[in-house]
Amino acid sequence: MTRVAIVGGAGYTALELIKILLRHGGAEIVAVTDLQEGRPHISTIHPSLIGRLDICLENLSPAEVSARADCVFTCLPHGAAASLIPHFLDGGTRVVDFSADYRLNDPEVFATWYNQKHGDPDRLGKVPYGLPELFRDRIADAPLVANPGCFPTSASLALAPLLKAGLIEPTGIIVDSKTGVSGAGRTPRLTTHYPECNESISAYNVGRHRHTPEIEQVLTTVAGAKVEVIFSPHLVPMDRGILTTTYSQPIGPPSEEKVLTTLSDFYAEEPFVRVVDHLPATKDVSGTNFCHVTARVVRNRVITISCIDNLIKGASGAAVQNFNIMYGYPETTAL
Amino acid sequence: MTRVAIVGGAGYTALELIKILLRHGGAEIVAVTDLQEGRPHISTIHPSLIGRLDICLENLSPAEVSARADCVFTCLPHGAAASLIPHFLDGGTRVVDFSADYRLNDPEVFATWYNQKHGDPDRLGKVPYGLPELFRDRIADAPLVANPGCFPTSASLALAPLLKAGLIEPTGIIVDSKTGVSGAGRTPRLTTHYPECNESISAYNVGRHRHTPEIEQVLTTVAGAKVEVIFSPHLVPMDRGILTTTYSQPIGPPSEEKVLTTLSDFYAEEPFVRVVDHLPATKDVSGTNFCHVTARVVRNRVITISCIDNLIKGASGAAVQNFNIMYGYPETTAL
Amino acid sequence: MTRVAIVGGAGYTALELIKILLRHGGAEIVAVTDLQEGRPHISTIHPSLIGRLDICLENLSPAEVSARADCVFTCLPHGAAASLIPHFLDGGTRVVDFSADYRLNDPEVFATWYNQKHGDPDRLGKVPYGLPELFRDRIADAPLVANPGCFPTSASLALAPLLKAGLIEPTGIIVDSKTGVSGAGRTPRLTTHYPECNESISAYNVGRHRHTPEIEQVLTTVAGAKVEVIFSPHLVPMDRGILTTTYSQPIGPPSEEKVLTTLSDFYAEEPFVRVVDHLPATKDVSGTNFCHVTARVVRNRVITISCIDNLIKGASGAAVQNFNIMYGYPETTAL
Amino acid sequence: MTRVAIVGGAGYTALELIKILLRHGGAEIVAVTDLQEGRPHISTIHPSLIGRLDICLENLSPAEVSARADCVFTCLPHGAAASLIPHFLDGGTRVVDFSADYRLNDPEVFATWYNQKHGDPDRLGKVPYGLPELFRDRIADAPLVANPGCFPTSASLALAPLLKAGLIEPTGIIVDSKTGVSGAGRTPRLTTHYPECNESISAYNVGRHRHTPEIEQVLTTVAGAKVEVIFSPHLVPMDRGILTTTYSQPIGPPSEEKVLTTLSDFYAEEPFVRVVDHLPATKDVSGTNFCHVTARVVRNRVITISCIDNLIKGASGAAVQNFNIMYGYPETTAL
Repeated sequence: MTRVAIVGGAGYTALELIKILLRHGGAEIVAVTDLQEGRPHISTIHPSLIGRLDICLENLSPAEVSARADCVFTCLPHGAAASLIPHFLDGGTRVVDFSADYRLNDPEVFATWYNQKHGDPDRLGKVPYGLPELFRDRIADAPLVANPGCFPTSASLALAPLLKAGLIEPTGIIVDSKTGVSGAGRTPRLTTHYPECNESISAYNVGRHRHTPEIEQVLTTVAGAKVEVIFSPHLVPMDRGILTTTYSQPIGPPSEEKVLTTLSDFYAEEPFVRVVDHLPATKDVSGTNFCHVTARVVRNRVITISCIDNLIKGASGAAVQNFNIMYGYPETTAL
Repeated sequence: MTRVAIVGGAGYTALELIKILLRHGGAEIVAVTDLQEGRPHISTIHPSLIGRLDICLENLSPAEVSARADCVFTCLPHGAAASLIPHFLDGGTRVVDFSADYRLNDPEVFATWYNQKHGDPDRLGKVPYGLPELFRDRIADAPLVANPGCFPTSASLALAPLLKAGLIEPTGIIVDSKTGVSGAGRTPRLTTHYPECNESISAYNVGRHRHTPEIEQVLTTVAGAKVEVIFSPHLVPMDRGILTTTYSQPIGPPSEEKVLTTLSDFYAEEPFVRVVDHLPATKDVSGTNFCHVTARVVRNRVITISCIDNLIKGASGAAVQNFNIMYGYPETTAL
Repeated sequence: MTRVAIVGGAGYTALELIKILLRHGGAEIVAVTDLQEGRPHISTIHPSLIGRLDICLENLSPAEVSARADCVFTCLPHGAAASLIPHFLDGGTRVVDFSADYRLNDPEVFATWYNQKHGDPDRLGKVPYGLPELFRDRIADAPLVANPGCFPTSASLALAPLLKAGLIEPTGIIVDSKTGVSGAGRTPRLTTHYPECNESISAYNVGRHRHTPEIEQVLTTVAGAKVEVIFSPHLVPMDRGILTTTYSQPIGPPSEEKVLTTLSDFYAEEPFVRVVDHLPATKDVSGTNFCHVTARVVRNRVITISCIDNLIKGASGAAVQNFNIMYGYPETTAL
Repeated sequence: MTRVAIVGGAGYTALELIKILLRHGGAEIVAVTDLQEGRPHISTIHPSLIGRLDICLENLSPAEVSARADCVFTCLPHGAAASLIPHFLDGGTRVVDFSADYRLNDPEVFATWYNQKHGDPDRLGKVPYGLPELFRDRIADAPLVANPGCFPTSASLALAPLLKAGLIEPTGIIVDSKTGVSGAGRTPRLTTHYPECNESISAYNVGRHRHTPEIEQVLTTVAGAKVEVIFSPHLVPMDRGILTTTYSQPIGPPSEEKVLTTLSDFYAEEPFVRVVDHLPATKDVSGTNFCHVTARVVRNRVITISCIDNLIKGASGAAVQNFNIMYGYPETTAL
């Protein structure tokens, strides 16, 4: 039995994580922390946990967390994660980090996109990026794993096999993503106020979204050549789900069959990626750790369409997948 | 041409009011006020007004508003309205008030339900309640009209004719209402954060909602006997619309035909109330000033089902209807 | 390992059932039947099962099903169930029936509400109603269990303890329910066409819904006195969830505390019913087998508010709960 | 007063058209036809018209329609329109056609994309494409106007000025569109069944949607060079609205300012197109005849983002705009 703690328990990814862990025979939730006053029962924050998890939110120090837990899932804002994680690691606790703090290898790139100096720059570049389908062998023994961003997961799973196989040009790749509103987190804002975003779709942060360098870094690593993407996220009136449509230039005469076969072969042994012939919908993977992906060739452009549940494969499911690899549980446990 | 000002222009009712007034040949919008810093163009607050209304939000004193406008629509929080409206009236400006400040006749009742002492208690009881279908003759000459609440409009239009005709008992009336989220206003809160209220329905303020005494006062006036209701509002994942289902005890042997005929006769000359045979849907009246209402008799209970658009007939449409009556325009102008 | 078959595999309840059974260590899905031509892979009907269940839909005779399976879940239209189930039972296969065919004890009542003569009238009255919280001891040894309707589950769990304790009058009970659209099944109709029912709420079948006699029968059994309800279902723009608000007359001086305590005591040992102090939302129980219920006393009326996921506790989760009881698995297995 | 008839009155575009015409001082609705049995009142098909339009749906011959009306709006399926419209024209009635039958100039292209031989091929190429912002001068005197498709409107308004100014390459243009469900019409299908498409986004007809040749024809005409697009529509869980994101290759060094200025200058005098600096949302134009459009330059790609209400500017509003031009009413009348 692995003792796990969740640091930052009030948000949606923490809630999904808890729901998954409650089905996990090998994990025991020993602490959920938050900055709240007092020690509110978790069901006052997450009513859906009534009668399912009997624990109070505590405001614990890193040392207190390390004393109790073998593994910590950090669900913290960017910046805050890097200020706490070194303490957990020093305390001998392994960490799966939901933030972006350890995803990028270069502190300069981090500073440029996140408008802050990185708090733990020496560790950057040594932390595995927790997308098992691409980097599984680096995860098993890592003390710290950087859980991937939701958009990068949806884009990377679609594009990586094609770049690796040299089927598409590494530059000028269009990544047009559509996400449900839970991706914006649980803090109320005008843009996610129901009557504002319901019955509406809009683009946001076009060309400036922080997942851009993350997508490029992952794909550059896989492609062995500098990848450049034009990334446009869109906000869709639904709770959860990401659909990512990419457009890229084929190298050589394009063939839809070749593209689909390359994807299928790449993921033949993967438990959570399914290459499909039809055009997938986010509902097909809602509540699951699956990614469905397909491809089309239209007028000399390669189009990929992939979908995930942003809170599961795009966050908490991926975290448990990484946890399973780190602790030697079957990779699909609880997923 | 009547010069109108809108005081409190950042919310949803103000936006709907502006859209209606833009179609109104007799009204000219001369000012929209708000407490914002600077003088932002209204389209920065309401992007849907781009190219439709060229005006800046101003932070004006009551005297400045009165100097410009013949009529003011006050879209202010409860309490704030009563602190400003006496100044408009002193300045010779007529007022349609969207708040609850002048709806209740009794300052004690106001204090009990709104947790504050009324700021202008002497005027209470002299201000007509702006539901033309019930109180039209008091509106035409009034300097100030209290625009009705959304739930009270939906409940009163269904129940008033039956109470007046003595068909149902005045006490023990169940009012089970279902509203879209725009009724909660434009200020982001956790309860109206998209991923919280989407794909969910819940009751709120059961037995404690502030529209309870308003419904009772209106119906008591019409019935000539003390009316008591049990009022339960529910929050429904949609932008707009209220459906109200009421259950009451018939006096004498009940007859569905009699109930429907009573409703039809009562509203025979009304431009905005339609008594229908089928079970109406809020979508049927969405974006309009109409109320659709029907009735059923089941196991010796009279059931009414009525629906309105909470932002139109439940707020801004009703306000313009009152404005039309006050200024002698055809009552349906712009509606 | 119990071999299970699902008869009628194309609908939403079958899909949810399969998802639950895939997590069930003791159940093996050996057949899924449907009237489709050919033997389509189940993932062509339910894309969310891609890579999760490798089985083809078959058009099997009852004898063929009985030869393979120990237990059959029948997800068939009313009428069709009663024409097949006797064959399964004759073949020695136990059955959990999702239809209404065996829920009512009286063939006359069935004929009145379902507009057809019952095909297996002699069995009526001998089949346990599969609501374990009320009738657990009749389920364990039953060859056939009638899985409850979704609305009756939400209403009965709230009202049964209060009727049994003699706290409320058995007649004149208002049951105002609100349901998500999946309750209408998977066959496209105009009323469930997205642009018709989205952004709208409406009542339907007021006083005439077929769950009326079912609610009354269950509650009459519990109360030991004839129960009469006025039942009004409403269609809410969301996928899943039922919120039921009931209004009843207290016997003797009402006390909110007494009502809540009665509910809490009644469900103290139940794994899936939670009596809460706050007003619950359907989202709190979405995707789970839980029922959350609370109560209020307002103006001498007892109000209960209960919510379930109509596809889980209102259908497939309840079916697996019954299955667990029938086959000796822990009642919460896979739920 | 212009007497207008609506042929094919049961769908969503007919309903929106009627709502607009009811506000139009110069148009009198003299007939609404449909193939229904009997002469049902229009409010039985469209409950939102109760008390607003008192007319019955009739099954009229073209000659009967022409005898009554000066102008016909044909809201018919592809193919059916071309079989009726010649009769209206022969009868001296002018026509605004909502179908695709007269949008394409080349009968071969029509046959390829619509899988049918065109029924009136000689007229193709002589019918103005009813997008006033691009082809206003051909509309005023035309007996027949082909009302544009919804996707082509959103894409053409964004791209035409840039192609005309030679700012972008005419080939390899990505058009990634997102539409609300009403665009699929009013006939219930599984793909538009509420529980299927709610809380989900998917792509459909990628590279094969029939609006592809329409977009290419319009833009080729404007550009004076063969335009080729890769068109991917997506279905979004909302009633109405289209957001189109395009990606194209700049000619020469790209400048965001130049692109935005080109758009602003092009539409400086247009009443219904607004070039904005922010990223627009479909809600901003919902229920209006406006198109909001903006542009960005990212990594040497020109991105445009435009949005319309698919039922108004994408269908019925555009039709009335064309009607206004044809009959000499101010172009913004009723819009």
